This record gives sequence, structure tokens and C-alpha cells, in this order.
Amino acid sequence: MKLNDWLNNEIPNIAKSLEDVHKNYFSIDKTIGFEGQQKIYQILENFRSALFPCLCDKYTNEDDRININIGNKLRTSALDLRFLIEKVLPKDQSLEEADQIVIDLINKFPTIRKTIQTDIQAAYNGDPATTSTDEILFSYPSIQAITIHRIAHELYNSNVPIIPRIMAEYAHQLTGIDIHPGASIGEYFFIDHGTGVVIGETCTIGKNVKIYQGVTLGAKSFPLDEHGNPIKGIKRHPNIEDNVVIYAGATILGGDTTIGHDSTIGGNIWLTQSVPPNSRVYNSQPLPNIKNGV
Amino acid sequence: MKLNDWLNNEIPNIAKSLEDVHKNYFSIDKTIGFEGQQKIYQILENFRSALFPCLCDKYTNEDDRININIGNKLRTSALDLRFLIEKVLPKDQSLEEADQIVIDLINKFPTIRKTIQTDIQAAYNGDPATTSTDEILFSYPSIQAITIHRIAHELYNSNVPIIPRIMAEYAHQLTGIDIHPGASIGEYFFIDHGTGVVIGETCTIGKNVKIYQGVTLGAKSFPLDEHGNPIKGIKRHPNIEDNVVIYAGATILGGDTTIGHDSTIGGNIWLTQSVPPNSRVYNSQPLPNIKNGV
Amino acid sequence: MKLNDWLNNEIPNIAKSLEDVHKNYFSIDKTIGFEGQQKIYQILENFRSALFPCLCDKYTNEDDRININIGNKLRTSALDLRFLIEKVLPKDQSLEEADQIVIDLINKFPTIRKTIQTDIQAAYNGDPATTSTDEILFSYPSIQAITIHRIAHELYNSNVPIIPRIMAEYAHQLTGIDIHPGASIGEYFFIDHGTGVVIGETCTIGKNVKIYQGVTLGAKSFPLDEHGNPIKGIKRHPNIEDNVVIYAGATILGGDTTIGHDSTIGGNIWLTQSVPPNSRVYNSQPLPNIKNGV
Repeated sequence: MKLNDWLNNEIPNIAKSLEDVHKNYFSIDKTIGFEGQQKIYQILENFRSALFPCLCDKYTNEDDRININIGNKLRTSALDLRFLIEKVLPKDQSLEEADQIVIDLINKFPTIRKTIQTDIQAAYNGDPATTSTDEILFSYPSIQAITIHRIAHELYNSNVPIIPRIMAEYAHQLTGIDIHPGASIGEYFFIDHGTGVVIGETCTIGKNVKIYQGVTLGAKSFPLDEHGNPIKGIKRHPNIEDNVVIYAGATILGGDTTIGHDSTIGGNIWLTQSVPPNSRVYNSQPLPNIKNGV
Repeated sequence: MKLNDWLNNEIPNIAKSLEDVHKNYFSIDKTIGFEGQQKIYQILENFRSALFPCLCDKYTNEDDRININIGNKLRTSALDLRFLIEKVLPKDQSLEEADQIVIDLINKFPTIRKTIQTDIQAAYNGDPATTSTDEILFSYPSIQAITIHRIAHELYNSNVPIIPRIMAEYAHQLTGIDIHPGASIGEYFFIDHGTGVVIGETCTIGKNVKIYQGVTLGAKSFPLDEHGNPIKGIKRHPNIEDNVVIYAGATILGGDTTIGHDSTIGGNIWLTQSVPPNSRVYNSQPLPNIKNGV
Repeated sequence: MKLNDWLNNEIPNIAKSLEDVHKNYFSIDKTIGFEGQQKIYQILENFRSALFPCLCDKYTNEDDRININIGNKLRTSALDLRFLIEKVLPKDQSLEEADQIVIDLINKFPTIRKTIQTDIQAAYNGDPATTSTDEILFSYPSIQAITIHRIAHELYNSNVPIIPRIMAEYAHQLTGIDIHPGASIGEYFFIDHGTGVVIGETCTIGKNVKIYQGVTLGAKSFPLDEHGNPIKGIKRHPNIEDNVVIYAGATILGGDTTIGHDSTIGGNIWLTQSVPPNSRVYNSQPLPNIKNGV
């Protein structure tokens, strides 16, 4: 076969060429690789099983096995996560730092779990279509996204590189909801439907906030340094205070934009300025033209 | 190692704490668990193989094996589904009801299959980029979403809890199209691209309707009961009559909003009122400012 | 059990009925099937591993095994792809054509890899939230989408049916970014966040273009032939020249619409006409009403 001959002759050269290009740009020994990426996804699935323990194994859940299962999931995932954190930490950080980061995270799991229960309750309160908290846990993308976010956010706060973003992008893949792990989000948080939601790195979101699909909490244009590169580490994304509702497709931009508590932002609103507490913001654009075509 | 010691000492307590939190909120014996969720995804894949039978096994499809394969997929999935339905039905419903629900569903498969063929035809008619119905079946998210919807909708009509919503959310994950299983959708239905589409529980959609990405058929604000909880079971989402086209990003809200037959709704329209048949609805917002920056 | 009896009696008939319906519409011997679809996803994963070679195997990457690994991934995937291309090519095309198509594709891999490096660089330059190119490779949906697109586009240019669209839809599933394999896209291309982006078949996009979530580069209404079917093969989607930035939610439509180089298109803009180079296009719609509700 023509192809087989060609493969035998040419593949070594092409492989060498790909290897050379790649090595110009990526260091080999510090990267976690695609297998590390897959491992992070698996760690998140295990953490979910540990956080929602009677849901994790087989259809039957014998009471005395639940506790052992949670322990096993946590133990395995903790060791896997430590291994990956060691890979991505700067070389001058000791291995003990990786240990401590994992310990700090797992120690917070009971608190994280209680906070996620407030998110489940917020979904129940906020959606007339739901009939049970079981349904919310198994079929609401918001719960999947916020569970992963609350874990990734802890690692972000511990200054772990890359891994929190890989976690966030896993949630984005599964749900269409893109929350940067840097965003700070209060309890009783609910996103309905969720596809297209973007929440930026330096957002702060209060308690009892409800967001619909397609909402962007983003940055205005950002300043460049003398080399034309974006300056990192500036507050770029808005603050949403307690008890705010933001309807579908609204875009709120800017690090000094604050939506005051108990405000309602209408669908498709474009907002780059602060609004005081108790505001109602709605579009004043003209009604659409309706023309009868017959 | 520091982490290993810590895990040995602390994990049992943390596992106990997670178990206790969880048991406060979720009953163990009636839930289908994450494994049930995965099983539902697998049932849907098997149903797809049964509905499109010459596509389901290996690259070669010997004629006499096709029929056996369909039968095997249906049989296995029917038993798996019955098991899960038993888990979620209220305890006072007999097992025979679960049997009957599965029988009613499978009995409708030839009809469902014919209806999906009209959806495939609608995609072919509605998209100049496509070149064959094979391409539509293998690469159009609309077909995947509507196939799952037409199955989930039957279970919703049989009053099966949770499972139809898990099916719908599986479709949402795969396609970015979020159709509540309660929505009633006529034949020759096509969603182009699809990401961000939301179709609410009490929508009714006629025949030969075409929708583009980012369209919301949603609810206006909903009434609360005396405890401040949303009242369930009210008609909240619009009616779309036959032969309507709705362009990208349009938002149509409200249970008493009806889009009359043969109407066209323009992109990004925000509509909370009914329009008569044969209407053309388009934005009267001012043209954008174009400023030459040189 | 009632269900078991029913399955034994009725499944053969229902299977026969499903088989008959299906055979009316789909030819068996030329289709790649759902297994072929899965195989294409696997080929793309292997190609990604070959393009980013030190990322592909285990956590340890011994230098002398990298080259062998790349070669093995390429060889296996090349043969799998040839098999599938043979299935979908019109019967009058020789097997040697399938061979040549695969050879042409793999030969371009070093060039494709270099172009993707420009896309990674564009992401680094364009997002203040990122901290390393490793992070971009592992957690930016834009890179996943454009990598798959640059492969699929080559097969589209070789007139391979169906397979490029299945590749594109795989990227769409993973990222929410829907790029038709026909679109022509220059180097240094970056899509931030990405969910809901749609880029049509006949788009041409220059160098150094940056796009945000929810942007549509689409078609206006399209002409029908005398049978009422859409006419295929017409230029329907816009041209975006070099150094253009398009903010979230903008919609640009039409085959004769050109966005001149170095222009900026504001968020949520609706544009169906060309704009000259160096333009800044922004909405002149009225500011939202802000009403203090207390």
C-alpha cells in the first residue's frame, strides 16, 4: 500500500520535526501532560463522590460501606493531587508545601459541602420547574459548576498554578459555565440554565445572587505595559452585592462597577457603571417593529 | 510523609462529617446515585443505536445481525430503565407501573423514529452548508438534542420523576441546547448551531419551526406562594405556532405569549407579547455608530 | 415479570420496524456509523498528542521514547483515518486518493503545529488572566477548537465528505465553539471564553484576529432553488481582515460584509454591512433606565 510505505519512510522525520518544534516552546519535565489533565478530571469526580457520599457507589448503599468509600476516594485523590501540585509548583517550593495545600483543601470539605447545600437550596427556591433537591443535584449544571468552582477557588487561593484553571475549564466543558477560579462567590448562589455565562477572575459576588444563561461579568479594555503585554493582577471585573438577580444575556463590565444589593438587572442589559442598592435596571430601547406580512 | 500521616489520622473524621451533612439532606435508599446517572446516559446511547440501527455496530453491518443487535440493545436498556424508574417512583406506585411505563415508551419507538426523520429532513432543508443526511445524523447537535428530547418527553408525560431531566441535561452537556422534557415540540423541528438555546417546560412548539443559536423561550417573573416559594405547575413559557423562524439570540418570554404561524422573529429580538400570524418582527434600534479611527 | 414477557414477544417486531424505517433513509454500506464517529474523536486525540508530544504519555517523559510515541500515534491514526476516508469517498474515487489525502494531511503537521503556536501566543498576549503558555495549552478552549479546526480544514480542502464536520462538531461539544471546517483562518487567532461562537463555512479571517464569547459570523437569509431547497456553495459569511477585535455577543452577517483591518467591533453589535479599515463600531442605543426601587 502506498500509505504504508510512506508512513515507514517519512514518519520518523515528521515525528522529529514535531518534537523539535514542541521543545522550543514547552518544558518537558515540569508539565503535567494530557494524562495529568485527565487525572485532574478524575480527582474532581472522586471529590464529588466524597462530597455527596450516598450517591457514589453502586445502586445499593450499605450504611457501613459509605464511610469507607468516602475515605478511599479522598485518600486516593489527595495523593494524586499532591503529585500533580508538586509538578506545577515553582522548583524552589518544598514538597511539604504541596502536602500542606492538599491538607488545607480536604480540611475545608465539610464547610464546602455545607455551602454547596445552600446553592442547592437556592436552585430549589429559584426555579419553578424543579420538583426535588435530588433532581437539582443530578441535573442542574449550576451545581456541577459551583461544586468544582468552590474546590478550584481554594487551590487558587493557595497559589497553585494551572490546576485550578484546568478544573474550571472542565466545569466549562460540562456545563457551558465559565467561572475563573479567582472569582469570589458567596453562599446561596444559583445560575439557571447557564450556557454562555462568563465570570471573570477578579469578580466578587455576595450572598443569594441569581444569574441566568448568557450573563457576562467581564473586563473592560485592559491596560498594557511598555512591551504591549496586558498588565496582570489588576482588579478588572465587577462586584455584585447580596440578593441581586441578573437576567439572561446581561453584560456587566469593569473592576470599579458595583451592583448594589437587592438590585435587579434586566435581560440583555449592557452596563459599565455602578448602580445603587435596590435598583431596577431595564432596557429603554424601542419596542421591536411588528409588521404583518400578509 | 506528612500528607500520608495526616490522611491516616484525619480522613475518618472528615468522611464521617461529610456523611452526616449529606444524610441531613438526601435520602439514601430512593436515590439513583451518580452510577444511575451514568446508566441513564448509557441507556440513551443504546436507544440511539436502536433508533439508527445500521449505524450501531462495528464498521461492517451484516444484514442478519442488525435485527439481533437492535433487539439486544432495546432489551438490555429496557430492563435497566425499569430498574431506575422503580427507584424514583413514589413508594406507593406498584412495580407494574414501572413495567408499563417502559413498555409504552418502547412501543412508541417506531413513531418517534419517523418523527426524527422529519427533523433530519428539516435540517437538510434549512442549512445550505450541509451536503447529506448522513452528515446531519453524525454532526448536527440539533438531531442529538431532539432525539433525546423526544424520548425524555414520553417519560415526562408518564410522570416519571428526575430521569427525564437527567436525560435533558445530558443532551444539554453534549450540545449546549437546553430543552426541558416538558416542552411539546412538533415534527420537522430544526435548531441550527444550537449553543445557548433554552426551551422552557411549558412551551408548545408547532410543526416546521426553525430556531438559531442563543434563542430563549422562557418565563417572565413567576408568582410566589405565601411562603415565598415559586408556585409550580403554571403555564410560564410561550407558544410557537407552525412555520415560525426565530433568528439567533432572540428572547421570547411568557406563558400567554403566542407567536402566530408563518412568522419570522429577527435576531436579538426581546419579545414579551403575542404577535399575529404572518408577522415579521425586527429591531428598530438605531444603527451602530461607525467611527473611522485613523 | 410483565416487562420480560412483553420484551420476548414484542421486541422482534419493533426491531424489524426500526430497521425498515432506517433502511428507507440511510444506506448501510457507505456509512461510518457511530463507531466511526467515536474513532474520529480518538484520531483527533492522538493527533493532539503527536502535535504536543512531550505531553502525551505518562507523567514521566523519557527523551528517547518521545519520538517513538509520536511516530506510533501518527501511524495508527493515519491508518484509521484512511479506512474511514475510503468509506465516505464517492465510490468512483480510487483507494489511492484516500492514501494521498492522509499523506498530504500528515505532511502538513509541522506547519500546522507552528501555526497553533502563534495561536497560543495570541492567547497569552490577549488575556491578562493567564500566567503561562502551559496554562493556555491545558485550559483554553480556544486552543482545542483551533487545533481541531486546522486539521479539519485540510480535509475539507481535500473534499473529504462528512469527516471534517464530525471533527468540527467534536470541537463544538468540547468547547461551545462552532467553527465550520470550511472557514479560512489566519495565524495568531484567539477566541476568549468561546461559548456560543459560530463561524460559518465561507468566512475568511485574517491574521491576529481576536473574538470573544457569543460572536456570530453568519449568513443572512439564503436564496432557494426552484424546488425551494437552499442553493449550496454560495459565499454567505463575512470577511474579517487582519488585527480585528470583536467583542462578546456581536453578530456580523453576510457574504459581502467585510470588516476592514485594525477595526474594533463593540459588544452586542448587529452588523450586516462592511466597515472600512481602522473603524470603531459601537452601539448608539440609549442607556438603560436605572430606577431606584426603595
